[in-house]
Amino acid sequence: MGAAAAAAADVVIPACAAVGIAFALWQWFLVSKVKVSTYAAPGNGHHHGGPVFRMEDDGEDVGMGGDHDEEEESAGDRTVAVARCAEIQSAISVGANSFLFTQYKYLAAFTAIFAVVIFLFLGSVHRFSTDSRPCQYTRGQTCKPALANATFSAIAFLLGAATSVVSGYLGMRIATYANARTTLEARRGIGAAFATAFRSGAVMGFLLASLGLLVLYATIKVFGLYYGDDWEGLYESVTGYGLGGSSMALFGRVGGGIYTKAADVGADLVGKVERNIPEDDPRNPAVIADNVGDNVGDIAGMGSDLFGSYAESTCAALFVASISSFGADHDFAAVAYPLLISAAGLLVCLVTTLLATDLFKVKTVRGVAPALKLQLIISTVLMTVAALVVSFAVLPANFTMFDFGAVKQVKNWHLFFCVSIGLWAGLAIGFTTEYFTSNAYSPVRDVADSCKTGAATNVIFGLALGYKSVIVPTFAIAVSIYVGFTLASIYGIAVAALGMLSTVATGLAIDAYGPISDNAGGIAEMAGMSRRIRQRTDALDAAGNTTAAIGKGFAIGSAALVSLALFGAFVSRAGVADVNVLNPKVFVGLLVGAMLPYWFSAMTMRSVGSAALKMVEEVRRQFAAIPGLMEGRAAPDYARCVRISTDASLREMMPPGALVLLAPLLAGTFFGVRTLAGLLAGALVSGVQIAISASNSGGAWDNAKKYIEAGASDHAKSLGPKGSDAHKAAVIGDTIGDPLKDTSGPSLNILIKLMAVESLVFAPFFAAHGGLIFK
Amino acid sequence: MGAAAAAAADVVIPACAAVGIAFALWQWFLVSKVKVSTYAAPGNGHHHGGPVFRMEDDGEDVGMGGDHDEEEESAGDRTVAVARCAEIQSAISVGANSFLFTQYKYLAAFTAIFAVVIFLFLGSVHRFSTDSRPCQYTRGQTCKPALANATFSAIAFLLGAATSVVSGYLGMRIATYANARTTLEARRGIGAAFATAFRSGAVMGFLLASLGLLVLYATIKVFGLYYGDDWEGLYESVTGYGLGGSSMALFGRVGGGIYTKAADVGADLVGKVERNIPEDDPRNPAVIADNVGDNVGDIAGMGSDLFGSYAESTCAALFVASISSFGADHDFAAVAYPLLISAAGLLVCLVTTLLATDLFKVKTVRGVAPALKLQLIISTVLMTVAALVVSFAVLPANFTMFDFGAVKQVKNWHLFFCVSIGLWAGLAIGFTTEYFTSNAYSPVRDVADSCKTGAATNVIFGLALGYKSVIVPTFAIAVSIYVGFTLASIYGIAVAALGMLSTVATGLAIDAYGPISDNAGGIAEMAGMSRRIRQRTDALDAAGNTTAAIGKGFAIGSAALVSLALFGAFVSRAGVADVNVLNPKVFVGLLVGAMLPYWFSAMTMRSVGSAALKMVEEVRRQFAAIPGLMEGRAAPDYARCVRISTDASLREMMPPGALVLLAPLLAGTFFGVRTLAGLLAGALVSGVQIAISASNSGGAWDNAKKYIEAGASDHAKSLGPKGSDAHKAAVIGDTIGDPLKDTSGPSLNILIKLMAVESLVFAPFFAAHGGLIFK
Repeated sequence: MGAAAAAAADVVIPACAAVGIAFALWQWFLVSKVKVSTYAAPGNGHHHGGPVFRMEDDGEDVGMGGDHDEEEESAGDRTVAVARCAEIQSAISVGANSFLFTQYKYLAAFTAIFAVVIFLFLGSVHRFSTDSRPCQYTRGQTCKPALANATFSAIAFLLGAATSVVSGYLGMRIATYANARTTLEARRGIGAAFATAFRSGAVMGFLLASLGLLVLYATIKVFGLYYGDDWEGLYESVTGYGLGGSSMALFGRVGGGIYTKAADVGADLVGKVERNIPEDDPRNPAVIADNVGDNVGDIAGMGSDLFGSYAESTCAALFVASISSFGADHDFAAVAYPLLISAAGLLVCLVTTLLATDLFKVKTVRGVAPALKLQLIISTVLMTVAALVVSFAVLPANFTMFDFGAVKQVKNWHLFFCVSIGLWAGLAIGFTTEYFTSNAYSPVRDVADSCKTGAATNVIFGLALGYKSVIVPTFAIAVSIYVGFTLASIYGIAVAALGMLSTVATGLAIDAYGPISDNAGGIAEMAGMSRRIRQRTDALDAAGNTTAAIGKGFAIGSAALVSLALFGAFVSRAGVADVNVLNPKVFVGLLVGAMLPYWFSAMTMRSVGSAALKMVEEVRRQFAAIPGLMEGRAAPDYARCVRISTDASLREMMPPGALVLLAPLLAGTFFGVRTLAGLLAGALVSGVQIAISASNSGGAWDNAKKYIEAGASDHAKSLGPKGSDAHKAAVIGDTIGDPLKDTSGPSLNILIKLMAVESLVFAPFFAAHGGLIFK
Repeated sequence: MGAAAAAAADVVIPACAAVGIAFALWQWFLVSKVKVSTYAAPGNGHHHGGPVFRMEDDGEDVGMGGDHDEEEESAGDRTVAVARCAEIQSAISVGANSFLFTQYKYLAAFTAIFAVVIFLFLGSVHRFSTDSRPCQYTRGQTCKPALANATFSAIAFLLGAATSVVSGYLGMRIATYANARTTLEARRGIGAAFATAFRSGAVMGFLLASLGLLVLYATIKVFGLYYGDDWEGLYESVTGYGLGGSSMALFGRVGGGIYTKAADVGADLVGKVERNIPEDDPRNPAVIADNVGDNVGDIAGMGSDLFGSYAESTCAALFVASISSFGADHDFAAVAYPLLISAAGLLVCLVTTLLATDLFKVKTVRGVAPALKLQLIISTVLMTVAALVVSFAVLPANFTMFDFGAVKQVKNWHLFFCVSIGLWAGLAIGFTTEYFTSNAYSPVRDVADSCKTGAATNVIFGLALGYKSVIVPTFAIAVSIYVGFTLASIYGIAVAALGMLSTVATGLAIDAYGPISDNAGGIAEMAGMSRRIRQRTDALDAAGNTTAAIGKGFAIGSAALVSLALFGAFVSRAGVADVNVLNPKVFVGLLVGAMLPYWFSAMTMRSVGSAALKMVEEVRRQFAAIPGLMEGRAAPDYARCVRISTDASLREMMPPGALVLLAPLLAGTFFGVRTLAGLLAGALVSGVQIAISASNSGGAWDNAKKYIEAGASDHAKSLGPKGSDAHKAAVIGDTIGDPLKDTSGPSLNILIKLMAVESLVFAPFFAAHGGLIFK
C-alpha cells in the first residue's frame, strides 16, 4: 500500500466527486429542457401582475365543483395553464428564496459568534499558548499547539456551515425549478412526470453528496499543509466541519419545519375543515406559504440534515482512524477509507439513477412506488459489492483500532462487514417504515378504519402504530451497533453509519422527489389543470409521502449510528475510560438526557401550534374581509401568510436551538464529562424512539386520509368520500401528524447528532476545565 | 443499640401496623353511619328488580332536558333517589366484584405457575443441592443452600401476590361501599360529602400501608426462624415479596386500565359525541361498565401499584442493608430502618388525616382542592420530623454500605437526608403535576383555548403540554438520585424511594378520593339527583381529577427511584462491577430497553382502542335495537357492556404482561447480565418520560374539557357551552387522553419496576447460567 495507494486515493476521491457534480448538472440540463414560459401566449394578456399570480377572471375553473372532468383542455386553456404554472412557480420560488435569505442572515450572525466561541473555548485549553505540546495518543511525538486546533476547528466549522447552507439552498433551487415542470410533464404522462421529479431529486442528491465529499477532502488537504505529520491535531480540527454542518441543519430543520407546518396546519384547518375547499385551492390565502414550506422545510432542511449526518460520520471515522494504527502508520489511503466508501457510493448511485430513468421506466401510476423501492434495493446490492472492493483494495489485511485506551485487532473484511450491516440495516428500516406508513398494508388501513368511530380512535390507533413501528428499526440499529462495536469498536459504528449513508445520493433523490411531487400537485390544483393531470400528480404525491417517511427512517437510523460514533469519539478524546451507569453522575446525565427530546418536542410542537393559530386567524380574517374571495372573484393576500410563517419560524427556532446547543456546553462545563456522556447516551436512546414514532404516526395519518380520499377499494369507499365523517376524522389525524412528522420528529435526529458532535469538538476544553460543580 | 433496640423495633413495627389497621376500621365505621337502604319506602314498589337497577317509570326525570333545576326535592323524590342510589351502588359493586373474581382466577393460575418457575430457576443455581454453601458477601461464613432460597423466594412471591390482591380488593370494596354514601351525603353539603369520600380513601390507604408493613414484617420474622444468622439468604428470599406484589399490580393496572377505558371511551364516543346525552346518563348502556371500571382500574389497580412500589423499595433497601455493615453486625434495628420509616409514616398520615377530617373541615366547593393540597404539605413536613427522629434513634452514628464491591462510609444524618430528599421530591412532582393538570393554571387554559381551532390543535397543544411537564419531575428525580447515590450508594436511593412512599397512606387516600367522587357524581346523575347536588359532586370530581394526576406523579416518581434501587440491588447480587455504556452489550441493552415502553404502550393503547370499538358497536346496537331507550322508557342491557369490558380486559392483558415478564428473563438468559442491566436502565430512563407525559396530557385534556363545561370564567364561557364546537374538540382530546392517562401511562410504572425486581429475584440464576448467546 503506502504512497501509491495514497496517490490513488488522491485521484479517486476528487474524481468521483467531480463525476457526481457533472452528473447532477447533466440531470439539471435534462430537467431544464421542459419549458415553462412566464408569459402566456398573446391574447391572455391578464397574466403579468407580479410574482404572486392572480386569477380574478378564472374563478369558475377552480370553484368547488370546478373539476375539468375528463375532457381535454383546449389549446387556449393549455396556454393559460402553462402561464399560470409559471406564475405560481415564480411565487413559490420567490417566497422560498426570500425566506432562506432572511434565515441565512440570522444564521450568519450565529455562525460568526459560535466560531468565536469555539476558538475561545478550545484556545483556552492551553491558555492560548503558541507552544507545541506532546501528542496525546502518539507517544513521544510533538503535536501542534491547542491554539492551532482552536483556529482550524473554527475554520472547519465555518466551512461545514457554508457547505450545509449551500447544499440546502441548491436543493431548494432545483426543487422550485422542477415543481412546475413536473406538473407540465404530467400532461405527457405519468412516466415523463416521474422522470422529471426524480431527476430533480437526483440533482440535489448528487450535488450534496459530491460537494460534501469534495469540500471535506479539500479541507483535509489544505489543513494538512500546516499540520504535516500531526494527524491527531489535523483530524481533531476537521471535526469542526461536522459541527458546522449539523448546526445549520438544526436551524434548517426546526425553522423550516415550523414554517411549513404553520402554513400547512393553518391552511388545512380553515380551508379543509371550515370552508370545505380542497387542499391547495388557490382561494386559500395560506396556500403559497404551504408550498414554499415544502421547499424550505422538507427539501432544504432534509438536505442539510443528511449532509450533516454524512459529514459527522465521516469526521468521527477519520478522528478514530487518526488515533489508530492507520494514523500511527500514516497510511493515508486507509485513513481515507470513509471518503473512498463515499466516493464509491457516488458511482453506485449514478448507475442506480440511470437504471431508474432510462432502463426501468415508470409507465403507470401503480409503477411509481415499486420503482422507488427498486432503487433502494439496487443501490444497496451494488453498494455491498463496491464496499467489498474498496475494503480489500485500500485496507491492510490486519490493523488495530483505538478502543477506549486499549487497542483492538481488526481485519479488512471486518470493516466490509461493518459497512454492509449499516447498509442493510438502512434497507430494513426503510422497508419497515414503508410497511407502517404506506396505505398498501394493514397498519394504515386499520388506522383508516378506526376513523369510523371518529377522530379520537383515529388518534389512539395512530399513536399506537407509531409506537409499534419503533420495534424493528430499534433492533436493526441494535444489531448494527453490536456488530460494528464488536468487530472494530467505535470505528465500526462510524463506518456502519457511513454504510447506511453511502447511498445518500439515491436516498436524497427519492426523498426530494416527495416534496417536488407535492408541489407539482399543488401547482396543478392552483393552475386549474384537468382532473386527469391532477390524478397523475396525486399518484406521484402519494408515493412521495411514503418515500418521505422512508427518508426520515434513514435519517434517524443513520443519526443514531452517527451519534454513537461521535459519542465514542468524544469519550476517547475526553480521555474517559468508562461510562458506568452505576456512577450517579452518569445516571443523572442519562435520565436528564432521556428527557431532553421531550423538552425539545414540547417547544417545537407548541411553536407550530401557536404559529398555526395565528395563520388560522389570518386566513379566517381574509375570508371574512376580502369580498368575493370564496367565490374565486378576488385574490387572497398570500404575502401576509408568507410573512406570518417567516416571522414565526425565525422567532421560534431560537429556543429549541439554544436548548440543543447549550445543554452539552452547560453539562460539560459544570458537571463534567461523565455527566455529559450520560446525557448524550440518554438523549440518543430516548430520542431515536420519539423520532421514529412521531414520523411514522404522522406518515400513517397522512396516508390513511389519502386512502379514504382515493377510495380505491371497497373498504376505502365505505369510509369516504371526501367530506364524510370518517374523512373529517382522518383530516384531524393528518393535521395532528403534521408537526410530529415534519417538525419535532425529524428535528430530533439533529438534536442527538448535534449534541454529540458539539461534545466532541469541545472535548479538549471539557477534559481540561470541565466539571466546575462536580469534577 | 443492639438487642434493646431490636426488641423495640419488634414492638414498634407491629404496633404501628395495628394502629393503622384500627384507624382504617374506625374510618370505615364512620363511613358506614351513612345509611343506604336497598329498598325504597312503601309506595315505590317498582324498585326490586335485581342488581341492575331499572328506571322504566322515571324516564322524564333524566331525559335530555330533565334537570331538576334549583327546587328542592319532595320527600317522595328523596326516598326514590335514595333507593336508586342503593340499586346503582349494588350494580356497580356486583360488577366490580365479579370482574375482580374472574381476574383473580386467571391470576391464581399465573401465580402458581410463576412460583414454580421461580423455584426451578433459582433451585437450578446449585443444581438443587441441599448442601450449605459459603456466603457470597460475608466471607468465611456458611449460608443456606440455594434450594432454600428458591423455596422461600417462591413463598415470598406468593405472599406478596396475595397481599397485593387483598389490598386491591379491599380498596375496591370500600370504594364501592362509599360511592353512593358520598352522593347521599352531598345532600347535606359539600363538607359532609368530602369527608365521606376522603374517609373512604383513608380506609384504603391505611389498610394497604399497614397490611403491607405487617405481612412483610411477619415474613421476615418467620423466614428468620429457618435462616437464623444467614441474613444474606433471608433478605434475598424476601425480595420475592416485591416481585409478587408487582406482578399482580401489572395485571391489575393493565387489565383494570383496559376495562375502565374501553367502557369510558365507548360510552363517551356514542353517548356524548353521537347521541349528545350527558356523561353517566342512565340511558347509556356502557355507563355501569364505566363506573365499575373506575373501581377496578383506578382503585384496585392503583392500590396494587403503590403497594408494589412500597414492597419493592423496602425489599431493595433490606437486601442492600443485609450485605452492608448492618447485616454483618446483625443490627436488626438498623436493618429494619426502612420498616421503621414506614411505621412512622403511618402515624404521620394518621395525624394528617385527623386534621383533614376534624380540624380543617372543608366548607365550600373552592375549599376542596386546597384541602387536599394541604394534606400533602402537612404530611411532608411532619414526616421530615419523623424521619429525623427515626434516623437518630435507630441508626449507628457511623456505618458502611455495600457499594458495588467497595464499601461506602455513611453517617446516620446522611440517611435522614436521603429520606427527606425523596419526600420533598415527591412533593415537587405533585405540585408540578397539579400545575400542569389543574384548570386553575395557564397550561390547561391554553389547551382549552386551542379548542377554538378544533380537535387537532387541542391534541397538538395537549401533547406538547405532556412533553413539557416531564422537565421538573425529571430534575427532581435526578437530584434525589444524585444525593441518595452520593451519600449512601444504592441504599440511599432505596430509602429516598421509601421517603417518597412513607406518606403513602395519605397519598392513597387523596388518590382514591378521586374515583370515589367520580362514581358519586355518576350515581347522582343516574339517580336523577337535583342539579345542586350534582354540582357538588362535580366539584368533588374535578378536584379528584387533579389529585388522580398527582397520585400518578407520585407513583411514577417513586417507581423511578424504586427501579433504580432494585437495579442497583440486581447489579450487586449478580456480581457485576460496572455497567459501562461503552460496552456494546450494555449499549444494545440500553437502546432496546428504551424501546420497550413504546412497544408496551402500543399494545395497551391498541387494546383499549379495539375494545372501545367493540363497545361502541354494542352501544350503537342497543340504541338502535331497544325501542324507547333514547326516550328513557326502556332500560339498556348493562350486563352485555360489562361483559365486553371484562372479556377484552382479560384477553388483552396477556400480551403486554408477557412482554414485561419475558423481556428480562430472555435478556438475562440469552444475553447475560450486562445486556440485562442496560435493558433495565434504558427502560427506566425512557419509561419515566412517557409515563409522566402520558398521564399529564390525559389529565390536562380531561380538565380542559371540564373547564369549558363549568364555564366559571369569561374565557371559559367564550369557549362553551356543552355542545359547542370548542367543547366537541375538547371531548375528542379527553377521549384520546383516556388510554394515555389511565392505561398505558400508569402501567409503565409497573413495567420499569417489575422488570427490575424480576431481574433481582432471578439474579442468582443469571449470574450462574445467564448469557447463553454472549456471555
